[in-house]
Amino acid sequence: MSFTLLADIGGTNTRFVLAKEGHGILSDSYEAFPNSGASSPEVLIQRYFQNQGIESCKQVVLALAAPTYGEEIVLTNHDWRFTIKSISAVSGAQDVRFINDLEALGYGLSALKSEQLQHLAGPSISGKNGPRVVVGAGTGFNAAIVTQAANGDHHVKAMEVGHMTLTVETQDEFDLWQYLAQGRERASVERALSGLGIEQIYQWHCQKNAYKPLHINAQSISSAALNKTDPMAEKAMQTFVHIYARTVGDLALAFLPKGGIFLSGSVTRAMAPWLQGSGFFDCFLAKGRQRDLMRQFPIYILQDDQAALLGCEIAANYDRN
Amino acid sequence: MSFTLLADIGGTNTRFVLAKEGHGILSDSYEAFPNSGASSPEVLIQRYFQNQGIESCKQVVLALAAPTYGEEIVLTNHDWRFTIKSISAVSGAQDVRFINDLEALGYGLSALKSEQLQHLAGPSISGKNGPRVVVGAGTGFNAAIVTQAANGDHHVKAMEVGHMTLTVETQDEFDLWQYLAQGRERASVERALSGLGIEQIYQWHCQKNAYKPLHINAQSISSAALNKTDPMAEKAMQTFVHIYARTVGDLALAFLPKGGIFLSGSVTRAMAPWLQGSGFFDCFLAKGRQRDLMRQFPIYILQDDQAALLGCEIAANYDRN
Repeated sequence: MSFTLLADIGGTNTRFVLAKEGHGILSDSYEAFPNSGASSPEVLIQRYFQNQGIESCKQVVLALAAPTYGEEIVLTNHDWRFTIKSISAVSGAQDVRFINDLEALGYGLSALKSEQLQHLAGPSISGKNGPRVVVGAGTGFNAAIVTQAANGDHHVKAMEVGHMTLTVETQDEFDLWQYLAQGRERASVERALSGLGIEQIYQWHCQKNAYKPLHINAQSISSAALNKTDPMAEKAMQTFVHIYARTVGDLALAFLPKGGIFLSGSVTRAMAPWLQGSGFFDCFLAKGRQRDLMRQFPIYILQDDQAALLGCEIAANYDRN
Repeated sequence: MSFTLLADIGGTNTRFVLAKEGHGILSDSYEAFPNSGASSPEVLIQRYFQNQGIESCKQVVLALAAPTYGEEIVLTNHDWRFTIKSISAVSGAQDVRFINDLEALGYGLSALKSEQLQHLAGPSISGKNGPRVVVGAGTGFNAAIVTQAANGDHHVKAMEVGHMTLTVETQDEFDLWQYLAQGRERASVERALSGLGIEQIYQWHCQKNAYKPLHINAQSISSAALNKTDPMAEKAMQTFVHIYARTVGDLALAFLPKGGIFLSGSVTRAMAPWLQGSGFFDCFLAKGRQRDLMRQFPIYILQDDQAALLGCEIAANYDRN
């Protein structure tokens, strides 16, 4: 069988799809599993193979929310460990590759259709006019930079921006900073701009307002805010959007992504209705003398949570050529 | 005459040197002028030519503390405006090029001798093992990224990191943040990490401690701190080092400069004795789970304030080949 298994192992969910030589991705084979339902990715692969009625594949490309150097992979936000050998053993594949999930998204960018991208602010993309940045807000937070060499080759590199210092601009935000830093000595960007971050920001608003929390997880906080059934959830979303916009603006000053900023990840998708309001772009632009520069960056929301799988296929082919 | 005029126009000083085809840089021709003593760079070029006994040159390469796209150059931190035409007219050169001053430093890196670099912390540089970052703290603050393509070509790009949000980690630092943000709506990195920043940090310490300021400018504050003649100056230096180290650490997470971090600029050189203490590296490393990653970045102080001139020559040649 000439199947390639493409997988995106996030901090919360794992997504699979098969590709077949000469046919590309087989859309019907797409399946997603919560990580919490399995003891290891090897178990999930077995389950997926069973569902698909296959026993083995030729190649595996895994997009991972983790550093991908070294022999053993240790997921950053979920307690799974595995190796090229263990994945090879369970899948039968001789060729097993790991790539960072944001790097997979970076490779996937060039193949995305317009309906997979929602324009948020700034100019529209026009040709390939500079580096692009993919920002991922989900279980964790990070960004990857996509540059193009003179020969047209794409170069994609994930950074560690989720561990940068969380910024504040008001006393209120510094109080939140201290709340997020409890038991540590600092608060990183990821402490606020992640699923757990939304939960903590919500709890902080509840505590500050002596309000009994009605929700525990990010998804229900986000829904309650949308449905306007919980004023603290709405406050939490507003706080999140300010921090998100300011942070993405800071990253724009660091990478000057004239080719576009692509916001991705489960938290970004849940926040999309809030990002559409004027609050996000106003905060993004608020860089003093650099306001005009800030207007030059196209900003998009990456709607498709399968884009990383597309990127896996491109990265694998790209690597072969 | 086959002279090339190389110049580094900073926010405070302008440095000149001549290069001669086949002979490289003529060290004896080096001269520096304070910008405040002249109404324009054209006037300074005339004065320099007079001192050197020449009337014109074939080529001019100017390193500038300013964006270098567009026809007219507007210096970021000094009120000079000039164009390729106006520089061509005064110098007689047909070939006039502008490059960003940090990009010039980036090009200059590869030609620096070991005595021009002072090892500050982290591993020593060993070969070309990753991107390099040049950080400039002087009249303003910025960084340039140096990467190497597969064919060995260097690519140098200045960012706008001085305009990123200034970070804080204590209530005291947030009070300083508010002091620096007075009359604006925000405090950027450059508000603290510059000559003016040192002066403001000093004034803030004086105000907070009801202490009559003994010094006005960054240079005398820095000297007073070194000579231990002013406790507020010492406090200002300590605050500066903390913010500097944390900011450089954040930039390391954004750019992963395994090839090295090179701290440059007049403020960096003035701060060098303070950076050597353990305070800088401790703050730099303090990125929680990423502490081990932080240990992998070589950190150097770029001692030579003529490195940008060296970079001008390399960039000019590099461009020609």
